[in-house]
Parts: sequence; structure tokens; C-alpha cells
Amino acid sequence: MKLTGDKMQKIMLTVAYDGSNYCGWQIQNNAVTVQQKIQEACHKLFSREIKCVGASRTDTGVHALGQVAVIEVDTTIPDDRIPYALNSYLPDDIVIVDAKGVLEDFHPRYQAKNKTYVYNIYNGSFPLPQYTRYAYFYSKNLNVGKMQEGAHYLIGRHDFKAFCSAGSSVKSTIREIYHCDVSRKDDCISVTINGNGFLYNMVRIIVGTLLDIGLGKKEPVDMKRIIASLDREEAGVTAPAKGLTLMTIQYDEE
Amino acid sequence: MKLTGDKMQKIMLTVAYDGSNYCGWQIQNNAVTVQQKIQEACHKLFSREIKCVGASRTDTGVHALGQVAVIEVDTTIPDDRIPYALNSYLPDDIVIVDAKGVLEDFHPRYQAKNKTYVYNIYNGSFPLPQYTRYAYFYSKNLNVGKMQEGAHYLIGRHDFKAFCSAGSSVKSTIREIYHCDVSRKDDCISVTINGNGFLYNMVRIIVGTLLDIGLGKKEPVDMKRIIASLDREEAGVTAPAKGLTLMTIQYDEE
Repeated sequence: MKLTGDKMQKIMLTVAYDGSNYCGWQIQNNAVTVQQKIQEACHKLFSREIKCVGASRTDTGVHALGQVAVIEVDTTIPDDRIPYALNSYLPDDIVIVDAKGVLEDFHPRYQAKNKTYVYNIYNGSFPLPQYTRYAYFYSKNLNVGKMQEGAHYLIGRHDFKAFCSAGSSVKSTIREIYHCDVSRKDDCISVTINGNGFLYNMVRIIVGTLLDIGLGKKEPVDMKRIIASLDREEAGVTAPAKGLTLMTIQYDEE
Repeated sequence: MKLTGDKMQKIMLTVAYDGSNYCGWQIQNNAVTVQQKIQEACHKLFSREIKCVGASRTDTGVHALGQVAVIEVDTTIPDDRIPYALNSYLPDDIVIVDAKGVLEDFHPRYQAKNKTYVYNIYNGSFPLPQYTRYAYFYSKNLNVGKMQEGAHYLIGRHDFKAFCSAGSSVKSTIREIYHCDVSRKDDCISVTINGNGFLYNMVRIIVGTLLDIGLGKKEPVDMKRIIASLDREEAGVTAPAKGLTLMTIQYDEE
């Protein structure tokens, strides 16, 4: 099989991973990350160093079903075979599920139109292994109706500074949330949130705040006040990473 | 806390486990099993050796949400606190979810009225870590309607010798299946089967046979002929253990 062609092309990868064993997406010294594993696999497959640029810098322990990343390669491997080829060099907990050519000026982070995250809470009495690998185990009684009511206040264009962890260097903390739903199926509660972008730890802080509302420690309408406060101290704690999954990232059709 | 009372009582435990790291339920030499782990936890909690008798001898790699087991103890710990007390001595992948007193003559295996198993098949293109830990990854195209049609022939009282692996020492291979359903939700196919008892590897051989039907290698009506043959060679392969979960075991109300 001939692995090199005659010109560079940008390939958009869709990536699923179990984040349990990784210090997040972004490459760093002295820690194993998802980006590093993909770059290593690219190196083996294409026989040269390749930078893989991700759309979302997921944190340590956060999972993904639809992370998007871009590589620039010079190859004759057809797009639809690239996932199989790369997966053969990847560990079982990182899987390339799609690959397709994109225009030269495509950037996975800057051009993302909206992202969807799901945060799962296992609200049973005991942390069953089958349900808690990808969910936060939380056994206290939660009022899902009130959580849903609180979630409704998040929708729209707001300054979400109150839901941003320290250490972020973003210029603007204004984001727009298009949907935010809280639903229960048996003992599993899911918070699904879609927006044009998310601040550092934003989804996990939103979930921590919704948990306070579900417990009755805060009222649904308090969400409005918390947003307006722009004060991180007013919001709830940052919910644990293991409950969070990056589901999809959407782009304009090209 | 006083851990010993003045009389022995039988306690029925409901147990959930991820079977990935265990050589099945039943205690054996030179291999780690779920029964052994529970007996070790009982030993630590009750300060003496306690035999834990299970309802179902699940195989290596098979999971459970509703395994039932019985211990005989002399304790003042209230039934509803026993799960918390035992779980503190158990690894995270084995969880006691319920404990209740039962009559002295209760036997979890002999008195089980019916058991429900679910076998999960992940029928997507790639083995996503989030879906394949408790499912068999099978990417070929499957006709779920035909699988359901084939499953229908299993219902009723039959001699299931064709669906029994060698090495079983049961006297009778006659069992009754009450329900058998095959359903798809997105890329996940679930086979749910309920019956008064199951032979060695019976559910996994049924699933192997249903996969042949789903692929078109066998017709749904062939299931009738395979049952009548009483010949293991006529049925499909034994599907992998990781897809199988023991869901519930039912007893007559006492």
C-alpha cells in the first residue's frame, strides 16, 4: 500500500474516547493525553510527525463521542479507510469514527457553530459499575422538574462569567446557549446542553448549580441571579469530569 | 457497633457486578471470582468464614445487575445497612444493592421461578469504548426483524439440548422460555430472554444462532429445526461473554 501521495490535504477526524485514562485532550509534558495518542498513531501510519488540532480541549476524565480534530497529510489512503488505519495504532479507548477531506482554511475550533454536551448523573442508591463509568453517582433525592426549570434560564445569550473556572484566558465570557434539557430515565438523569461555545468548566459548573436546585438548596429562579452576578462564588461546585461527554460539534455545510 | 447477635439468619443479597475482571461467579482455585470476593467481604465484616450461595453460576466475563445470593449470619446489623457494610469491603466492580431476611429453607437456585438475561450487541461501524464494555461489537448488517421472528420459536417448553455446551452435567435439558425479544435502539441491539432456567451457555448459543439469522445465513424458521435436532452442531457459535448481563431473578412472594 502506497502511503504517500503528491499533495497535502486537510482531513477532519471525528473521535470517540473514554477519557478515564487520559489527562484530557491537549498534549502536555509528563502526562498522557488523547491528542498525543492520536499524533503518535499518525506518526506511525504516515511515517512523519503530524500535528492534530482538536476542536475542544476536554479536561482530564471527560469523555467524547464526537470530538473533531484536523490533521494535514500527504496520503493516498482513501478517506473512508483512514479510521481503520489509524485505529490499528490507537488504544481501545480512543476510536476514530469518521474521516473526511475539508478545505485548506478549515479550523475545527474557530469554525465550530455549536457543540452539544451531555452530563450523566446516576441517581440510584448504589454506584453500579455498569452505570457509573460514564456518570456521576449521586444518591440524594433530586427534583428533576426544578432542575429543568432552572436550566431554562440558561437559554439565550448571556455573560457566563459566573460559570467559568479560574485559569481561563478567554477575552469574552459571553456565550449563547440554544438548548438545555434535564431528563430522567429510571435512575439516570441526563443534562443535555447545546450552545455556540463553552467556557472553562462551564458545563460542569452549570451541572453543579443544577444539582443544588435539584436538592432544594437553590431555587430555579436563582439561576437568573447567578448569571447576572458574574461571580463564580454564586454558582455551584464543578461537577466531576466522569459524568461529562462531548457529543457532537456542528459546522456549516461546506 | 455490635456485629454478632444471638441467632443465625438467612439473608438474601441482590448483587450487581462488572464481570470483566472475574473468572465468573463460582469460587475456584487459582482464579479470582465474584463469590470469592463476597465471601472475603463477609469474612471481614462478620469476623468468621461465611459461605455465599449464588442463584446463577455466571461465566467468566458475564455481568450481573440482579444476581441473587444467600448468606447465613449471626448479626445485629439491620438488613438495610448490610449492603453499605459489605460494599465497604468489596471492590468497585461488585456492589450489593439489596439485603433482606428470608426463611430458613430458602435456596436461591432451587427456588428461582424465572430469570431474565439481556444480551447486548453493538452494531455500529466502530467499537466505541462507551458502548462495547457491556456489549459484543458486531459491525455486519443484521436484520433485526428476522432475528425477532427466529426468537419467537424459542418460546415455550422445549428440550434445549442443541443450545447446551459440552461439560454440563444437568439431568434434564428441558426448559421453558416465557419471553424472547430482539430490539434495536440506534446502533444497539438487545436480546432479552426470560425463562424458568438456562443450560450451560444457553443464552450465548441462542444469541449466536440469532446472529446467523440476522445475517441471513439461517432462516428464522430454522430455529424450529435446530431445537428439534437436539444437536449442538446445528446451533450457532457461543456469542462472547461480555455482551451478557443477568438482569433479574424472580421468586414466589414469601
